[in-house]
Amino acid sequence: MLISNLCVKRKFGTVADASTKGHKLCVKGGYIHQTFQGGYTLSPLGYKVCRNIERIIREEMDAIGGQEILMPVVSGADIWKESGRYDKVDVLAKFKGRNGADYVLNPTHEEVVVDFVKSVLDSYKQMPFMVYQIQTKFRDELRSRAGLVRTREFRMKDAYSFHLTQEDLEKFYAECLQAYYRIFKRIGMKNVVDVKSDNGDMGGSISHEFMLLHEIGEDTVYVCPCGFRANRETMGESKICPVCGKPLAEHRGIEIGNIFQLGDKYSKSMHLEYTAQDGTKKNPIMGCYGIGVGRAMASVIEESADDNGPIWNMEIAPYKVHIVTMADKTGESDKLGQKIHDYLTEKGVEVILDNRDIRAGEKFADADLLGAPVRLIVSPKNLEKGVIEVKYRHPDYQHLANELPIQNFEQALDTLLGECK
Amino acid sequence: MLISNLCVKRKFGTVADASTKGHKLCVKGGYIHQTFQGGYTLSPLGYKVCRNIERIIREEMDAIGGQEILMPVVSGADIWKESGRYDKVDVLAKFKGRNGADYVLNPTHEEVVVDFVKSVLDSYKQMPFMVYQIQTKFRDELRSRAGLVRTREFRMKDAYSFHLTQEDLEKFYAECLQAYYRIFKRIGMKNVVDVKSDNGDMGGSISHEFMLLHEIGEDTVYVCPCGFRANRETMGESKICPVCGKPLAEHRGIEIGNIFQLGDKYSKSMHLEYTAQDGTKKNPIMGCYGIGVGRAMASVIEESADDNGPIWNMEIAPYKVHIVTMADKTGESDKLGQKIHDYLTEKGVEVILDNRDIRAGEKFADADLLGAPVRLIVSPKNLEKGVIEVKYRHPDYQHLANELPIQNFEQALDTLLGECK
Repeated sequence: MLISNLCVKRKFGTVADASTKGHKLCVKGGYIHQTFQGGYTLSPLGYKVCRNIERIIREEMDAIGGQEILMPVVSGADIWKESGRYDKVDVLAKFKGRNGADYVLNPTHEEVVVDFVKSVLDSYKQMPFMVYQIQTKFRDELRSRAGLVRTREFRMKDAYSFHLTQEDLEKFYAECLQAYYRIFKRIGMKNVVDVKSDNGDMGGSISHEFMLLHEIGEDTVYVCPCGFRANRETMGESKICPVCGKPLAEHRGIEIGNIFQLGDKYSKSMHLEYTAQDGTKKNPIMGCYGIGVGRAMASVIEESADDNGPIWNMEIAPYKVHIVTMADKTGESDKLGQKIHDYLTEKGVEVILDNRDIRAGEKFADADLLGAPVRLIVSPKNLEKGVIEVKYRHPDYQHLANELPIQNFEQALDTLLGECK
Repeated sequence: MLISNLCVKRKFGTVADASTKGHKLCVKGGYIHQTFQGGYTLSPLGYKVCRNIERIIREEMDAIGGQEILMPVVSGADIWKESGRYDKVDVLAKFKGRNGADYVLNPTHEEVVVDFVKSVLDSYKQMPFMVYQIQTKFRDELRSRAGLVRTREFRMKDAYSFHLTQEDLEKFYAECLQAYYRIFKRIGMKNVVDVKSDNGDMGGSISHEFMLLHEIGEDTVYVCPCGFRANRETMGESKICPVCGKPLAEHRGIEIGNIFQLGDKYSKSMHLEYTAQDGTKKNPIMGCYGIGVGRAMASVIEESADDNGPIWNMEIAPYKVHIVTMADKTGESDKLGQKIHDYLTEKGVEVILDNRDIRAGEKFADADLLGAPVRLIVSPKNLEKGVIEVKYRHPDYQHLANELPIQNFEQALDTLLGECK
């Protein structure tokens, strides 16, 4: 991709209404555009990052046996009345169809998934199983915040598991908790902890929030050196560790995921039954597991960006390699830049080429906003030395080679990209 | 994947409320589940097919220079008022947020994309470009029909192109028309024609509908041997070819895609401007291009299924290979079935294994509903002969080998799958 063809506009100067560093960089870099208060369009750049995050989530959900489905954004009011949540969930947006029927925009999909599973589940032999989706939700929040950190409409991975017993749920719940840590690590998050939390509106008993410890977080997390962790809701006024009695350290946290043991709240209220081994009808025990995709992107930027732009790892970067060519009279730099670009494109590596006739400083500022982990600089000076200069935006890669030979650059580049994994 | 683990229920007997063969098979095969009238959940099976269709669409849109974005399902009423369509589009669902603001569920995204492009476009140098999304829409239709053929909520690919001149739009429009034929062919549709149509609510001048000629279609298409084609709206009462004067043949058609030359209707009403080469401000010329994903899946089934189930090609089949093992006392069939399954899984080929202890007839009926192009039958009888029996559901593959040697099945299977492409 040529940077001049990219349908993205980098913006400079101050960004109005952006309260956090990450939000500012998302707007400056042209990753997102606000369509309405709390609703965003993802540009080609922002959507590439989100699709990379979705791929990671999908792989990890599949690895623990998940089966991907797609449920609708809208549903009839009937199933929400059946579960008893129609008048209880304040973020539930409602509208009337031309046919006179009442509809809702699903803010979460327990009702919809239970209705779906009713059409599938007969026998105890079918359990356990987990279905998940990566899909759009709408929550009629009173306020939105910090770009994609808190929005009204957002993409979310939500998974739902179905079990014969509480013990079996707990076993899967523990597996899912581990999968979540793998996901957040692959996305590039560092200070992630899980915290016991209140089930609130969701029902059920045990639940955990995954918190990215960060100063812009809306939540408070109490952490004890003994390993105990809790959020404000579960701790109340106390700031003393209930396990070891020491004073708790207080952190701010962004909630990047949550997992719930739901028991039979939904399966019972909505009459989801299976035939047990003894022939009786029973309600499955359920768990549910959520991760916000856009919020994950926003959180990585909050945690890892510098003042000049986001710092992506190889797995989620919109472009892995950013080639900057410096104008020279012979046109040799542009020619080599194009050659490297075509080689990487052919190999399926996402690459962007900046061969615009503008100042080097502008090119580097744009490269910082795009945040590719590997930057190749092709200039007359480097051509003379027979090398391509390499810069790394991501700290994990900075010990690697800072130049590649032009002769046989293909092999050297393959090796280098292999080392960046 | 083991068929016994698949979170899908095949249903037998008659299906209430299903008016067409395709709708019946979608329900019987467990591809879809109705969440509300005109809103469906895609099961793991249905979503696999849709994701394969989406991959094809994405590849072909990228090939003509498209850049993928994601716009929200919801938007504020403001942009719909600005374009003048807020009170004109009857399928526009509206609701009020808790903050008192008016929202809509976007039935199409001209308003939203123009608002996005306003944040990106400055100069004539940036054009032409095309952005597209694959995303969920809601249309408050008075009736839904034939499963995924006509729904209220649906997944759609919608693309929007921006040009300096009408001539440049027409050039891209012709490229997109060809890309659409490639897409429908890869999806496995046969009787597809493009038909000049009325722009209606969309505005602009020229537009084409892509019609799959099929008896269940809601639309009427007139076709002349001379090559002329038109729909009922453009023909009016006349059934005589305006080009050659011969009587027109009348067909039923399912509208599987449409493309529009929009002119400056949206760019003008919504004040989307760029600076032209001469320094003046101008409105871009736009085109838009739609394909319904779920409808594409439904249409393939209507056109190609037999009475026993869908017939998928390799590109869109949820599973490419379906292994059926026949019980034998030694367990050798199951062992070989598992070995083939593991080999294909390792190679990234989507494969399903049916080693259930049920009648062969039931297994074959399920295999027909899953519709994998290649079916491998491992039985004691075949083991004795030293072969794996091969059956093909798709007619294009039926000339290929009807057995594979057990010895070195890996190599023979690779060759066979290569030939099925």
